[in-house]
Amino acid sequence: MRILIIGAAGMVGRKLTERLVKDGTLGGAQISHLHLVDVIAPERPSMAAFPIEMEPADLSQPTAAGHLVAPKPDVIFHLAAIVSGEAEAEFEKGYRINLDGTRYLLEAIRRTGGPEYKPRLVFTSSIAVFGSPFPEAIGDEFLSAPLTSYGTQKAIGELLLADYTRKGFVDGIGIRLPTICVRPGKPNKAASGFFSNIIREPLAGQEAVLPVSEDVRHWHASPRAAVGFLLHAATIAGETVGPRRTLSMPGLSVTVGEQIAALRAIAGEKAVKLIRREEDPTIARIVAGWPRNFDTRRALALGFKAESTFEEIVRIHIEDEMGGKI
Amino acid sequence: MRILIIGAAGMVGRKLTERLVKDGTLGGAQISHLHLVDVIAPERPSMAAFPIEMEPADLSQPTAAGHLVAPKPDVIFHLAAIVSGEAEAEFEKGYRINLDGTRYLLEAIRRTGGPEYKPRLVFTSSIAVFGSPFPEAIGDEFLSAPLTSYGTQKAIGELLLADYTRKGFVDGIGIRLPTICVRPGKPNKAASGFFSNIIREPLAGQEAVLPVSEDVRHWHASPRAAVGFLLHAATIAGETVGPRRTLSMPGLSVTVGEQIAALRAIAGEKAVKLIRREEDPTIARIVAGWPRNFDTRRALALGFKAESTFEEIVRIHIEDEMGGKI
Repeated sequence: MRILIIGAAGMVGRKLTERLVKDGTLGGAQISHLHLVDVIAPERPSMAAFPIEMEPADLSQPTAAGHLVAPKPDVIFHLAAIVSGEAEAEFEKGYRINLDGTRYLLEAIRRTGGPEYKPRLVFTSSIAVFGSPFPEAIGDEFLSAPLTSYGTQKAIGELLLADYTRKGFVDGIGIRLPTICVRPGKPNKAASGFFSNIIREPLAGQEAVLPVSEDVRHWHASPRAAVGFLLHAATIAGETVGPRRTLSMPGLSVTVGEQIAALRAIAGEKAVKLIRREEDPTIARIVAGWPRNFDTRRALALGFKAESTFEEIVRIHIEDEMGGKI
Repeated sequence: MRILIIGAAGMVGRKLTERLVKDGTLGGAQISHLHLVDVIAPERPSMAAFPIEMEPADLSQPTAAGHLVAPKPDVIFHLAAIVSGEAEAEFEKGYRINLDGTRYLLEAIRRTGGPEYKPRLVFTSSIAVFGSPFPEAIGDEFLSAPLTSYGTQKAIGELLLADYTRKGFVDGIGIRLPTICVRPGKPNKAASGFFSNIIREPLAGQEAVLPVSEDVRHWHASPRAAVGFLLHAATIAGETVGPRRTLSMPGLSVTVGEQIAALRAIAGEKAVKLIRREEDPTIARIVAGWPRNFDTRRALALGFKAESTFEEIVRIHIEDEMGGKI
């Protein structure tokens, strides 16, 4: 089985790569070749039982996708995107990469195609396809009414994925990821960064800033769950999904207060004391427009799984990022 | 006020043109210039109190929209599209005209723009953005999950319209038209043609074929109502609409049996006898996948109006197309 990962250098792409290298198989099939692509060439993973090719490629260049698809990978993970803030600040760039890039990829698959080539394409969408006002929990039939260009581009990607799948050009599955928490690495400036910062930094003995009140509720899944979603989306039988090809992934709806309580239960009051409250009305306003809870019964019925407590999410971070010790 | 109609040669475009010529004003403002565009130059309307320019243009050519927008029309009606059957049969052509064409138009407006140019753009979408299974009546928060390429292209147009409006590049309003009934002209081969044929042909003393059973329910509005939607969409205050810029238009949900009863009430049993039942399983299957009823409370609250009985729809056809006489 040949696998192509576009956007392999990002956090989720690297974790997916690690997992594929460790497993050596996907859905019971031996991996014969892994092709890792990003705008800058991804790093070579540790020893693998199969050849791995690293390549820089810019999907927004019209000819790039054709070259990537030519060896007919059986499974393609399309994780490449510029993020919400950048797509909002740079209108043309956002459309070029997030919309045109996705469309070029679908077209490259269609043109490579013929009835004998219909790869599984896993597309990472986002809960940013939803815009307020929301119901109490966003269900599988709630409209996509994004309030950002990023969300618009993802919603369009979902529509294209469904149409190209319906026409038999590709076998696409889109997954809308919850906010990934605890995100490893350094604190970043994304408006959502604090959801991870207030756990990761105190666990490492560092101070973290909390810019919103403790009653703010949000929708989370661990990086490990995100990789699990991708693997399940890569191997699920397409005909069980039906014509609506993108699914909101399961997750955990918790308040910031519940996050802090989980940190306290695992790392004690000493860790919690490292959270410094510093209200930021701008971040509070942005976060107020985000979805807080979902009813993901389609994804659950199809076997997608996420964490059910925030303590579990904290423990996964300690196991996967801190060698099991705090 | 300068007005541009793209797709002016189609049935709705011609009726809109007639109405603007007759009124001489739009939303209380004098019309100073009307620019009629279609792939073949539209016909010159009868005498008007303002200059009318007819021009052939193909919106799927990347430079066409810039030329049309350069004179900075105050109101742009974008009615141009290839229809559902053609978009399904010719995949590339459908995307080129229905998606790229709409995007070129939005880009042309953005590039012409600057804060001082933000025209009202009225975009005709379609109930084809919805795909079964449906609720009993499709509400304003039901997802777009189209089952045709045409519906996909319209749903993408809606998303682009909302994002370009949100960013302040245009002041867009999208309207999802019901099936237009009674459609004037000759019987056509569209799967939906019979809804009009079984009224128009018997009223003219001609036989019409009914390919489905009388309990088939569908969603209708008259051509006169469609023009009313367009005029209202052109003049409504944008800030009352909010960020969700496309609205399902009101209409009338009736069964074929109720359509026939209205024909009987107006034109008698003699007319009804001209309807020949000839079941067509292909058409029956296509129609079974179409929406049957809507809950359009947003559009109603914003002042959009449709017919409330099918007899009214039949009478409008007799008044507008048959000089008031059968």
